[in-house]
Amino acid sequence: MEKYLVFKSLAIIIVAAKIFGLGARKLKAPQVAGEIVAGILIGPSVLGLVQYSDFLGQMAEIGVMILMFTAGLETRISELKKTGVKALAIACAGVFIPLILGTLLYFVFYGTAPWGSEEFFKAVFIGLILTATSVGITVEALKELGKLSDTVGTTIMSAAIIDDVIGIIVLTIVIGFKDPSQNIGKTLLMTGLFFVFCLVFGYIVYRLFKIYDKKHRHTRRIPIIGLAMCFMLSYVAERYFGVADITGAFIAGVILSSLKDSSYISRKMDINSYMIFGPVFFASIGIQNDLSSFNMGILLFSLAFVIVGMGAKVVGCGAVARICGFKGRDSLKIGCGMMTRGEVALIVAQRGFTVGMLDPAYSTSVIMLIIISSILTPIILKVLYNEKSTNNEVAENVT
Amino acid sequence: MEKYLVFKSLAIIIVAAKIFGLGARKLKAPQVAGEIVAGILIGPSVLGLVQYSDFLGQMAEIGVMILMFTAGLETRISELKKTGVKALAIACAGVFIPLILGTLLYFVFYGTAPWGSEEFFKAVFIGLILTATSVGITVEALKELGKLSDTVGTTIMSAAIIDDVIGIIVLTIVIGFKDPSQNIGKTLLMTGLFFVFCLVFGYIVYRLFKIYDKKHRHTRRIPIIGLAMCFMLSYVAERYFGVADITGAFIAGVILSSLKDSSYISRKMDINSYMIFGPVFFASIGIQNDLSSFNMGILLFSLAFVIVGMGAKVVGCGAVARICGFKGRDSLKIGCGMMTRGEVALIVAQRGFTVGMLDPAYSTSVIMLIIISSILTPIILKVLYNEKSTNNEVAENVT
Repeated sequence: MEKYLVFKSLAIIIVAAKIFGLGARKLKAPQVAGEIVAGILIGPSVLGLVQYSDFLGQMAEIGVMILMFTAGLETRISELKKTGVKALAIACAGVFIPLILGTLLYFVFYGTAPWGSEEFFKAVFIGLILTATSVGITVEALKELGKLSDTVGTTIMSAAIIDDVIGIIVLTIVIGFKDPSQNIGKTLLMTGLFFVFCLVFGYIVYRLFKIYDKKHRHTRRIPIIGLAMCFMLSYVAERYFGVADITGAFIAGVILSSLKDSSYISRKMDINSYMIFGPVFFASIGIQNDLSSFNMGILLFSLAFVIVGMGAKVVGCGAVARICGFKGRDSLKIGCGMMTRGEVALIVAQRGFTVGMLDPAYSTSVIMLIIISSILTPIILKVLYNEKSTNNEVAENVT
Repeated sequence: MEKYLVFKSLAIIIVAAKIFGLGARKLKAPQVAGEIVAGILIGPSVLGLVQYSDFLGQMAEIGVMILMFTAGLETRISELKKTGVKALAIACAGVFIPLILGTLLYFVFYGTAPWGSEEFFKAVFIGLILTATSVGITVEALKELGKLSDTVGTTIMSAAIIDDVIGIIVLTIVIGFKDPSQNIGKTLLMTGLFFVFCLVFGYIVYRLFKIYDKKHRHTRRIPIIGLAMCFMLSYVAERYFGVADITGAFIAGVILSSLKDSSYISRKMDINSYMIFGPVFFASIGIQNDLSSFNMGILLFSLAFVIVGMGAKVVGCGAVARICGFKGRDSLKIGCGMMTRGEVALIVAQRGFTVGMLDPAYSTSVIMLIIISSILTPIILKVLYNEKSTNNEVAENVT
């Protein structure tokens, strides 16, 4: 194929993704949703302007690694220590309640499957998609309300970050079972070994980077070598430990997240991501989305999936927050703040398609969950906070 | 192929390119040369860590478009108008003298060929590689000497930019003849039509961007849509006019170069370029460079090529500068300032390999020219300026 042909696809993807991304933001939906819709429109399902190709797939894959690396970079280990046990407990509930309820949902729709069977892991994967919280929309909503730095706000943010870490560990273990013939013990062992490897490797690299970072702050070298490390760890994870490459990319981010220059690295990654790789990834989800496979069964399942997905976070995180001593309304806020999903849910789903643990038809369900949860969360938070401030005013009047 | 396998290649390319790039800079050689050497080392010729693949080729191609787009963005049409006729005359000499001498050099080594024959165009291509000036190293050297903004400095910079524009027009015409069976008239017509199309399209786009840029300065949209335009124009050039895609990318840059936000666009492109696409492009030149095809014949030709390449600029630009009224020593400075070559020479050569007008073995010659001219220019300029300032001091003492 002539190399210049791909420029047409790239130009169309970049422009369409940007226009629809901005449109989505105007409608208070996440930009990512707009980019996916753009992909559906320009793809074979509708206009047929762009066809999926190996090259686009590979570019999208690089986009995914950069997104996961950035997600890892945003982990602040020191802050996590501060917020402590409460956020950890809430995060655990935020991972395991959706995981269990999602699995059960699949069983309700398609019948139960014996523990460890292929069908069983398909059910678990549905739960797995529900685990990752995307806190971006919540943060924006809380900022607008001026409540970002109160206890509820910081708890949500910490819990969402820990949530990602636990989620990725669970994903790693589940993906380890992709080959049903494989020994369960061996899978767990390799996963464990990978995390041990990351601890040792991460410690050494972190020390080296820290020394270097002190001498040369804000030089281009730091993000460049960081990106190389992200790619290397993704490769090592898959190649030598049978662990998902996104886990490697995420951990590379976590390792560098405590550097003073971490936000500088993150900014540089961001530019790479929003210019080419991000739009290609999100649009390629739309391009690959075969509308013809959509039917009533999938629609019904998707609706249930959205309700369970949001409900599981509200109930799980809310209940644990209540147990941890938060007041009733604050617990509800935390639960609702945790219910938005974003790109990580999509990335997990994509990984599921690739390893054959998830039918691509379910991408519609994931897209619906992202759009609906992102639109509803800010509205609900606003209502909850407004009612509270009214109560506060009443309380102030009384005292 | 499993998608994660490419991450290993990318990680190795990024790290090796960075290390050797920095090493080259320490040795006062251009960073690009270090990146190419890194490619030779990690490629099949030496260590065999990375193999050339279609994917890397396509990534490199994107890198080339971004580099040409950035080169276009750095054209300041308004400044060109100011420096006027002198710079234009010097630039013309800087294109046509090397073009002619390069062609003759090929004839001397391999015998003459009839006008319009395939062999004839191969000779012309050798000349073509010699046309583009890379002013980066010269600018740095002049900055160091504190002479960047004197008449000689501004003349060099303007001439180098005009030089690029004329060079790309000549390249476009020559590449138009890649199919020897094609009608010469038709090729010239299509090339002309393409430039007319660019004028009309460029004017409309420029107006639209200007209005938009006024309202939304420094928003991400401007570089994103700019990049999409670069890709689109590259595609349109090749697909509909049979013109080199790099011409399209360069012109896209020129169209946006008068925007207030042009340096903002250029900065964003730069980040994309230095993180992934640039290293992949330069390293891939090294990876593809088959050392085994290197022999005495090529070495001798390369040495002659370097001497002719540097000499043609010094003589051509220097003589015209003298005619334009510059003093003898100043003319020499201008000639020497114009003799550095950089990535554009490589990109032109690559295009030659692709269309079959140049044997890949000559990439060694191009690499040698870049390295030697980049190392010598600052040294020679320093000598020329130091002698002059000594003369000036003498002159001041006399008066």
